[in-house]
Amino acid sequence: MNMKNLKRSSLLLLAVFATAAAVNAQTGEAFGKAITNTNITEKEVEAAQIAWGAALIKISQDNKTGGFAAAKATAEAVLDQAYGYNMGPVLFKPTLTTGDQVFRTTRAGALAYFVGGDKDFPNDTGFALKGWEKYEFKNAAVHISGDLAITMGNVFLTDASGKVTKVDKTWGFKKDDKGNLRIVLHHSSLPYNP
Amino acid sequence: MNMKNLKRSSLLLLAVFATAAAVNAQTGEAFGKAITNTNITEKEVEAAQIAWGAALIKISQDNKTGGFAAAKATAEAVLDQAYGYNMGPVLFKPTLTTGDQVFRTTRAGALAYFVGGDKDFPNDTGFALKGWEKYEFKNAAVHISGDLAITMGNVFLTDASGKVTKVDKTWGFKKDDKGNLRIVLHHSSLPYNP
Amino acid sequence: MNMKNLKRSSLLLLAVFATAAAVNAQTGEAFGKAITNTNITEKEVEAAQIAWGAALIKISQDNKTGGFAAAKATAEAVLDQAYGYNMGPVLFKPTLTTGDQVFRTTRAGALAYFVGGDKDFPNDTGFALKGWEKYEFKNAAVHISGDLAITMGNVFLTDASGKVTKVDKTWGFKKDDKGNLRIVLHHSSLPYNP
Amino acid sequence: MNMKNLKRSSLLLLAVFATAAAVNAQTGEAFGKAITNTNITEKEVEAAQIAWGAALIKISQDNKTGGFAAAKATAEAVLDQAYGYNMGPVLFKPTLTTGDQVFRTTRAGALAYFVGGDKDFPNDTGFALKGWEKYEFKNAAVHISGDLAITMGNVFLTDASGKVTKVDKTWGFKKDDKGNLRIVLHHSSLPYNP
Repeated sequence: MNMKNLKRSSLLLLAVFATAAAVNAQTGEAFGKAITNTNITEKEVEAAQIAWGAALIKISQDNKTGGFAAAKATAEAVLDQAYGYNMGPVLFKPTLTTGDQVFRTTRAGALAYFVGGDKDFPNDTGFALKGWEKYEFKNAAVHISGDLAITMGNVFLTDASGKVTKVDKTWGFKKDDKGNLRIVLHHSSLPYNP
Repeated sequence: MNMKNLKRSSLLLLAVFATAAAVNAQTGEAFGKAITNTNITEKEVEAAQIAWGAALIKISQDNKTGGFAAAKATAEAVLDQAYGYNMGPVLFKPTLTTGDQVFRTTRAGALAYFVGGDKDFPNDTGFALKGWEKYEFKNAAVHISGDLAITMGNVFLTDASGKVTKVDKTWGFKKDDKGNLRIVLHHSSLPYNP
Repeated sequence: MNMKNLKRSSLLLLAVFATAAAVNAQTGEAFGKAITNTNITEKEVEAAQIAWGAALIKISQDNKTGGFAAAKATAEAVLDQAYGYNMGPVLFKPTLTTGDQVFRTTRAGALAYFVGGDKDFPNDTGFALKGWEKYEFKNAAVHISGDLAITMGNVFLTDASGKVTKVDKTWGFKKDDKGNLRIVLHHSSLPYNP
Repeated sequence: MNMKNLKRSSLLLLAVFATAAAVNAQTGEAFGKAITNTNITEKEVEAAQIAWGAALIKISQDNKTGGFAAAKATAEAVLDQAYGYNMGPVLFKPTLTTGDQVFRTTRAGALAYFVGGDKDFPNDTGFALKGWEKYEFKNAAVHISGDLAITMGNVFLTDASGKVTKVDKTWGFKKDDKGNLRIVLHHSSLPYNP
């Protein structure tokens, strides 16, 4: 997936999420309309993975054009739409967290990681503010079980200078009652350097 | 679904079940081969519904050509392949059971219902031995949740004289580790007659 | 379960449903508060089965004290709280439906069955208006799979004259995002009479 | 969890796994024996996490007492009992893998990581052979969804010299048809060092 130079409006961002949700619609060819299917499909997983990168780039763009307040507002919208903090603690281990604050199981901890500016998380400088311009991902394997899907692979992020950051990434997506996929697991780590 | 005058060998019956299992294979177009997906698909549900009727007719045919012993052997194979008695008690309410033996949560109870000849179930005369020749079903609605699918609708069975028996039918299919759908719920009842 | 002479206010009815939902709270002894568990427990299933009977009796009581309008309002509240019509078509085969209207996959069809008075369902006289005063159930078997539970057994309903109606009953309960169990499957049939 | 100086026989190791499986047995107090429940419980998750550490220490012990062949045999038994390679590709990112071989989605790749000695994985020196003597884990959060549970937290491993290695660990456990929990996801990474 390549999303170079994404410049989207907030409306577009919402559209991306809406698209991910729309993919949920089951065709139900075999049974007409009289079917309910709460399972996650592979297409939905792929759409959610695309949406995650689009959202990250959107926060970076909003930071550049609208400053911290705009970036923070977008980050909050992303957390509320695409993460599962409304369902319970999220299993979130961001790439760059340390010490007693490695795991960000609360929304506040996730927001601090993405945009910083929270005195309760003093080491956070805002991962999503680093001027990301391009996003690619490559799955090593995917496991789908009911309304939960887990993926493992690499994510590649490119900043304005062209520098690429590669991370080992695990996601868990849970489909909610409205058909939206929400991230309930997110383990990100830099490659091991012997 | 119309399966008039089905005359299958045991090998063919096994082939029907194998086909139902083969449908399980996920194409995994989006992620190549590196995907595991334990969910039930609509096609698998339809294949399992077809297989149930084919099995019932097969037992009837075997009874006609090979007698009780042949019919019983086929019924046992069907129970072992297509029902979930290996997983625990099956929620089975056959069409014609009565009294204290309405529910057939054990394999022995199910076998007695289908072929009779069990002194522990003295009222059973063998539902599958009634010379069924044709099978059709029509789903009213289907609900799929993970590796479990439930269906509700009508089943139409035609005997050698052309008489059609219509029943209200609920099935629950559970996908096992090998990808086979097994019946863990089966509620069958004659239409209400005011 | 015996709920003789239930005389509950609407508030009490809501309390019953709230209790069923409250049972959802996971104790999480092993992991403290940091756990999310979307599975159905046996206690939740039992609470939902109790709540169904309490709701039926409540509609009957409201009909007696408040007339059709009161009974209908309660029935609508029950359908909206305890059935899954908000999730998709419900696999509902009521005890006494006939002809082309056997299956009530829509909320309108279910409401008509419980309280009648709908010209689109001319044969419905209102099952919940029959003056039910006592409710008992007995499970033959239960199967729990993720956030979906299916049960099979007998339900016994007693009217004002003391007459007991026994039905063979299958339910499927789905746990929604808020932790409430909703009926997505309901197959009810009178015992077979040879 | 503290398992200092574990010295177990292979029989004991199997007993640990058997215990983890035995915990699966549902008491079914509410419904007697007539219940099937395929969901994972918190106790099962905890037992599987304990078993993982016991297995790692067992491999180290076997290497010390029986040499490479003994350690390899134990590692193979562990992979076949406690990992889900029989179900499909496992989402496994070990702590110390690099380059094109970061992800070990096959059994061969996992075995090479744990005991080394595979020319196809030339950088593997055998993580389980490092003389581990003590194992502790601490969950940050757990998410249970049907027969799949995911956990995130820290694991602490102590070697013979007393040196403690801390890792950030995500596991996904899937319950198979026999009631055994199998690891289908395993993301392990060293803490980020700014």
